[in-house]
Amino acid sequence: MPSNQQILLDNRPTGEALVSNFKMVTADTPALKDGQVLVRHHFLSLDPYMRGRMNDAKGYTAPQALGQVMIGGTVGEVVESRSPKFAVGDTVVGMGGWQQFSVVDAEQLGALRKVDTTHVPLSHYLGAVGMPGVTAYYGLVKIIEAKAGQTVVVSAATGAVGSAFVALAKARGCRAVGTAGGPDKCKYAVDELGFDACVDYKTHQDAGSLSKAIKGHCPDGVDGYFENVGGMVLDAVLPLMNAFGRIAMCGMIAGYDGKPVPMSYPALILMSRLRVQGFIVSEQMDVWPEALKELGMLVATGKLKPRETVAHGLQAAPEAFLGLLKGKNFGKQIVKLI
Amino acid sequence: MPSNQQILLDNRPTGEALVSNFKMVTADTPALKDGQVLVRHHFLSLDPYMRGRMNDAKGYTAPQALGQVMIGGTVGEVVESRSPKFAVGDTVVGMGGWQQFSVVDAEQLGALRKVDTTHVPLSHYLGAVGMPGVTAYYGLVKIIEAKAGQTVVVSAATGAVGSAFVALAKARGCRAVGTAGGPDKCKYAVDELGFDACVDYKTHQDAGSLSKAIKGHCPDGVDGYFENVGGMVLDAVLPLMNAFGRIAMCGMIAGYDGKPVPMSYPALILMSRLRVQGFIVSEQMDVWPEALKELGMLVATGKLKPRETVAHGLQAAPEAFLGLLKGKNFGKQIVKLI
Repeated sequence: MPSNQQILLDNRPTGEALVSNFKMVTADTPALKDGQVLVRHHFLSLDPYMRGRMNDAKGYTAPQALGQVMIGGTVGEVVESRSPKFAVGDTVVGMGGWQQFSVVDAEQLGALRKVDTTHVPLSHYLGAVGMPGVTAYYGLVKIIEAKAGQTVVVSAATGAVGSAFVALAKARGCRAVGTAGGPDKCKYAVDELGFDACVDYKTHQDAGSLSKAIKGHCPDGVDGYFENVGGMVLDAVLPLMNAFGRIAMCGMIAGYDGKPVPMSYPALILMSRLRVQGFIVSEQMDVWPEALKELGMLVATGKLKPRETVAHGLQAAPEAFLGLLKGKNFGKQIVKLI
Repeated sequence: MPSNQQILLDNRPTGEALVSNFKMVTADTPALKDGQVLVRHHFLSLDPYMRGRMNDAKGYTAPQALGQVMIGGTVGEVVESRSPKFAVGDTVVGMGGWQQFSVVDAEQLGALRKVDTTHVPLSHYLGAVGMPGVTAYYGLVKIIEAKAGQTVVVSAATGAVGSAFVALAKARGCRAVGTAGGPDKCKYAVDELGFDACVDYKTHQDAGSLSKAIKGHCPDGVDGYFENVGGMVLDAVLPLMNAFGRIAMCGMIAGYDGKPVPMSYPALILMSRLRVQGFIVSEQMDVWPEALKELGMLVATGKLKPRETVAHGLQAAPEAFLGLLKGKNFGKQIVKLI
């Protein structure tokens, strides 16, 4: 059996996450039992939710166990199979974690999914046609319930979720406005992703100033907001929400480092009769098939052109992940393993 | 026609509301036109929402106009009628405002409603079997979607909304826990209103301490929270919410005085996948009939025994209203006019 490089969570962050929270080890891949397959990972997905799992917090999904391989989505190829469901050479998406190989119980429902790379490149199954894409779909379609003519706003506009969000929103006839960090990302959001406007939050010192800038691009107010960030952007969008608006709470990066970031004016939820709803897409499996179908079609027809930032080699994963938390990536952050 | 004492909104508060924001005047009641009735008010309702209307804020319902009679629910008796729908002597509930008499267009849908005082005292149509009762119903039934065995929490437990809330919650087999200010209110909440427990927020210096105290009475966590207050109580309950919990945002007294009170840890909405929803019951007219039917039955059968704090005479209204905002009332605050 091949030897397998792995990255474990070695210790939990006490504030900001650090490279020293992780440890790289090499293990042997165990011999397969009946029903198992061995997958060689081509790409590893890095996503903001992983920061949440590094904490030992109540209420959220199970924390990442110490001393275990970091959780994470992977795409790869079956290199050995003792399951009738998968053949050697199949391209598959799964939750293989931060390692080169994984042994998967192919019988376990949803553990591994065969994917077709004829019209969709393999790595996109980690982004636009994977978890981030479905996340955008759930927020836009199930929580915001976007309709033609409405205005929707998304933070982290050029990320994997934001890119899928705008394609889905434009397909529904919405006006889509994003926020992102830096002029390059904002230009890309409008020129390539199809946003009607994108506001560079880095040019604003406070929520009031940012709010005015966003308002300038939302002449009819905001009907739906997809929250990937929290903090100043949330404070800026909240006063712009129309009566009966919906906010899908998907990410609160700003608060992951232990310091809770307040919502400055929660009375607006009452005053504007908003619905604010948090969700985790892995708990909403029934929506995946319809979402993946639409997202696959959008990619295949060129209406959704996902951008990727690629780190090379497993050892680059921790640094790339910390960069992601600081917005250093541009589009979906992945790690190329072979 | 009789002369009519009225209280107008004279100027808007710049911080805390003051008696000097109001002005008392005397006017003649105009002659009735066809379709109109003259109502003599027996009781005027004082409610926290009125503080919101005193501001000239965007997003909420229309602000109270300056120089006009203060908005407010009233119950009284028809003393003159030029409408076939109402006879002299009918007891009616309406939105007559802070004055002794009102002229009502009886043809206008929902402007005036005949009520039966055989089993329900007239003043209760301003509280338990009126707007505050329906408010409790909407939050508990339509937003929290309370089910048997679940734990629900309400702030301002002994107020008009809180008293109705607990009766409706117990009728559904829920565990009901309240918060209130002072030992008398807390004892009353448990002994008379039927709460399983009530926590005196005044004995706690911060949200952390209050949270621990509430947690002690919610061994299975909190499934639904009805927010009448905001601020420290909201911060205390938020960490206790179970996954997929619901929060009905009905009142944010703490923030009405212009100083926004933050929500300290909004990331919990995501972490616990909560649904937080603001509402104004006057926008949800379709729910009133079913709500009033159940509330009337609860009062008639003694399962809901509403307590009232009565101020005497129209001139007492401003002072009583400011006291209400500070929690000086005990149960539903009304003004007896005759």
